[in-house]
Amino acid sequence: MNMRANLRIDNARVLDVYSGEIADMPVCVREGRILGFSRLEADETVDAGGAFLLPGLIDAHIHLESSMLCPACFAQAVLPRGTVTVIADPHEIANVKGTAGLAYMLEATRQLPLDVRFMLPSCVPALPVEDAGASLSAEDLLPWLDSPRVAGLGEMMNVPGVLNGDAELMAKARAALDRGKKVDGHSPGLSGQSLDAYIAAGISTDHECSTVEEMQERIRRGMYVLLRESTASRDLLRLLPGVTPANARRCLFCSDDLHPAEILENGHIDHHLRLAVAAGLDPVSAVRMATLNAAECYGLIDKGGIAPGRVADMILVDNLRDFRVRAVWAAGRLVAGNGRMLEALPPVDDAAMRGSVRLAPLPAHPFALRIPGGKARVIRLLPRSLITGHHVRTVNVTADGFFDCALNPGLVKVAVLERHHATGKIGVGLLDENYGLQGGAIATSVAHDSHNLVVVGDNDDDMRLAVEETARLGGGVVMAADSRILAALPLPVAGLMSDRDAEETADAMRELLRLARVHFHIREEFDALMALSFLPLPVIPHLKITARGLFDVDVFRFVHIAAP
Amino acid sequence: MNMRANLRIDNARVLDVYSGEIADMPVCVREGRILGFSRLEADETVDAGGAFLLPGLIDAHIHLESSMLCPACFAQAVLPRGTVTVIADPHEIANVKGTAGLAYMLEATRQLPLDVRFMLPSCVPALPVEDAGASLSAEDLLPWLDSPRVAGLGEMMNVPGVLNGDAELMAKARAALDRGKKVDGHSPGLSGQSLDAYIAAGISTDHECSTVEEMQERIRRGMYVLLRESTASRDLLRLLPGVTPANARRCLFCSDDLHPAEILENGHIDHHLRLAVAAGLDPVSAVRMATLNAAECYGLIDKGGIAPGRVADMILVDNLRDFRVRAVWAAGRLVAGNGRMLEALPPVDDAAMRGSVRLAPLPAHPFALRIPGGKARVIRLLPRSLITGHHVRTVNVTADGFFDCALNPGLVKVAVLERHHATGKIGVGLLDENYGLQGGAIATSVAHDSHNLVVVGDNDDDMRLAVEETARLGGGVVMAADSRILAALPLPVAGLMSDRDAEETADAMRELLRLARVHFHIREEFDALMALSFLPLPVIPHLKITARGLFDVDVFRFVHIAAP
Repeated sequence: MNMRANLRIDNARVLDVYSGEIADMPVCVREGRILGFSRLEADETVDAGGAFLLPGLIDAHIHLESSMLCPACFAQAVLPRGTVTVIADPHEIANVKGTAGLAYMLEATRQLPLDVRFMLPSCVPALPVEDAGASLSAEDLLPWLDSPRVAGLGEMMNVPGVLNGDAELMAKARAALDRGKKVDGHSPGLSGQSLDAYIAAGISTDHECSTVEEMQERIRRGMYVLLRESTASRDLLRLLPGVTPANARRCLFCSDDLHPAEILENGHIDHHLRLAVAAGLDPVSAVRMATLNAAECYGLIDKGGIAPGRVADMILVDNLRDFRVRAVWAAGRLVAGNGRMLEALPPVDDAAMRGSVRLAPLPAHPFALRIPGGKARVIRLLPRSLITGHHVRTVNVTADGFFDCALNPGLVKVAVLERHHATGKIGVGLLDENYGLQGGAIATSVAHDSHNLVVVGDNDDDMRLAVEETARLGGGVVMAADSRILAALPLPVAGLMSDRDAEETADAMRELLRLARVHFHIREEFDALMALSFLPLPVIPHLKITARGLFDVDVFRFVHIAAP
Repeated sequence: MNMRANLRIDNARVLDVYSGEIADMPVCVREGRILGFSRLEADETVDAGGAFLLPGLIDAHIHLESSMLCPACFAQAVLPRGTVTVIADPHEIANVKGTAGLAYMLEATRQLPLDVRFMLPSCVPALPVEDAGASLSAEDLLPWLDSPRVAGLGEMMNVPGVLNGDAELMAKARAALDRGKKVDGHSPGLSGQSLDAYIAAGISTDHECSTVEEMQERIRRGMYVLLRESTASRDLLRLLPGVTPANARRCLFCSDDLHPAEILENGHIDHHLRLAVAAGLDPVSAVRMATLNAAECYGLIDKGGIAPGRVADMILVDNLRDFRVRAVWAAGRLVAGNGRMLEALPPVDDAAMRGSVRLAPLPAHPFALRIPGGKARVIRLLPRSLITGHHVRTVNVTADGFFDCALNPGLVKVAVLERHHATGKIGVGLLDENYGLQGGAIATSVAHDSHNLVVVGDNDDDMRLAVEETARLGGGVVMAADSRILAALPLPVAGLMSDRDAEETADAMRELLRLARVHFHIREEFDALMALSFLPLPVIPHLKITARGLFDVDVFRFVHIAAP
């Protein structure tokens, strides 16, 4: 009983998420777990100098791939920010690489001090009409579900499938529930009887609320609601007025998708805490949302609090307003301090994830667009939104009926090229002047959810050049102008992730975004690249484009560019 | 999507435990689960007349056997009180019948509308020095742990074993934790470093707090605390001041041990609700403690709230002060109304549990007590307490050194007879005048935890008669006076449970307790029978008696009745 500790932290104000109190007491750690609060002899002692000791932060829902960082570099970016656990849905890489992608993500995170738990992607591909790199059946997922690092089934985006009791989807949900694991939801705008039916399928979370009403309706029906603050969708402050002392235990934080520059500049879940507390949420409730609530929701029984037997994930912060992270212990080991990692994270073999861009040889005129009638369906990109406009325009065409940008100032071409199986499928469409691009082309292999190759441009030559360079790099973002490469961010890992660290990747991204404004004149209101990355996602209204052509989401079918 | 409901409840004020709100909305049920809150067509509709609809109540910790009722009769008693789920630790029957007892309890509850989940008894026997009917090793428990109706491992009463890392105990805990199941605690008085170590073994609840300080210390260390209101230990109102808005989510209700008359007169978890609300707890927090919190604690993911997909366990109460239960639905079926069951519960084959009292033939003088020196260790029973006094008295003995009650007015004999394996072990001791018994003998086969046969009396003849009648009945409580049987409550099922219903059993108990006062003159402050039933439990201070003799709990060893 006279146990010796490996570590004792003295002089800390310990935030106890269970009682909601803050107590001055020593915290002892042994073999990676909390031993207790007695002043035991210890191999090492740390004087916290009166700072606040909190449980390690938990991001309840994230697609790691969206950071464009490999798992180790992602860990290096977020650990110094206090995130010690993330619930990751690897559905981007699964759309490219299927179960090999899952295997890579599990392996690449196995040895990290960041504790990565997985929700298996439930909807790969997002729709049957997609040309993804892989599809994942219930049978494919089954062997992965028993892993202790798999917490359940990822967001059920196929809402109609759930409501219609699609057998394959239900089999996936059943398999998770039968193992006592969770099923994440994704039901923006769903309400009333349909929402009831969706939840009754065993779905227990939603991170897609954008109004207090949506949030309240879900909490009342037994869901956990994740307050999301992502690069694409800033929901936290919109939802915060809906958090009450009575329902806060059902509220969590998540980042969903974060660009690397955003992590470096704003932070991660520490940023959520700052935002929430600055907006008036009491700090203890905020910390519980970032720790205990997430642990309870996902069944992480030995995480989420500083208490005997729990994994010793702890962070030291100066105060409960700025949440500046001074020190981070992951499973009892000091891994980061004052904003920097204290150790290098070893690289992982990613050979199987490389060379994922397999394009068929381009034809002579891959982007030729014949609209003999001169009336075209046109996509309008909207700033700060994934929703697009759909309208019909009269366009000028050549004598033989071809669209030419030179004849239609402001309109630009957009194309999606199947890039997983070299099938040669190319869908071509038009964007209106709202986006504002001129003077070249931009291509990217990050394009939800199938991650085919998207290119936009005001001339076919630069479009071809950007596509070919993206393929040569094995994926990435490429800008071409005046028949030369202007800038590029290589994303060789599945065409989604960089092999560089967060700083380098963020710098490259910033440069691309700068060029988008100064060279391509894309309107400042747009995140120029993210707007492109969501253009092919045929589950968001109204008009989208895939490698099979234009997709009218409102009527849920492909439509011809030539309007009647 | 235009689903038809089996049942729709209209005009109810639905208590939503997730948001803490009360909402007027219809509730639809289909195939035993909540469908949702739309006004669907239904096979049957119920007008709730503005009453409050709550989730079915959950007792977070109970030993069913202590009600002296078979599971079906227990269910008939508590369902009309609103209890729809209990977490039961069958450690009484396990001490008598081992795994056969577990099998019986699982089988006898399998078809009940009461949802009985089990915590496998962790400490059978309570101590190695006990003569229980069976012992349960980690290996014995293993096959039962995977049952979906087993929620984990029952109360870890062997605190020194936990603190010393006893291999067998740790193997039991590990087996439960590895399956994501819970381990219940039992750590009265434990504090500081020892409590830390106890919790760090993976123990997540305690129902033995009797002070706010004990409760707070446990909640701060991540435990769930069960506020107990049992026949033997009334802790609820003592602990209630420790429940705060910030920690209420970690608080639950439990009854632990309840006599049948108490259920009929006071109620069950509905009684806890009345007590707590009358004492000032807000009703929504109280209902959460009786529903959602217990479901969360024990991982009952589809219980504890009225929400889509959850099991349709619901109760209708007039108001949130009296909690008078008007109607009870278990898994969507109306099973009780206005205090009465609406259906009979079929009997279960209990043949294997009968004939459990196996005494060796009694010797000529089974209760002879030789104290030649005339100084004896004497047990003092204390009213409303399981703790006993231990003192040394000068007693009058016969010429050949034998104790005789006739020579020592006020002192009575107590004996414990091994009754499982007919070993003939008999321990004999003395009770002082505090208990007050005179005029005969009382015997019982309910005697924690080994459930050997206990008898007290002021003459050896009545003691023998009471013992022999108890054995003849196959267990029970028997009173003998003037060489005849005065009254008896047969408990033929494992010597613990009646085969009659709650009313008959309660009536018999009431008659026994009346006779204890009017015939045997036992002081009113005592629950005359419960005091006897805890006399052999050698884990509660200070002096106890087992079939092997007197046990001094303070020094943790057997002692001779003759004091030096």
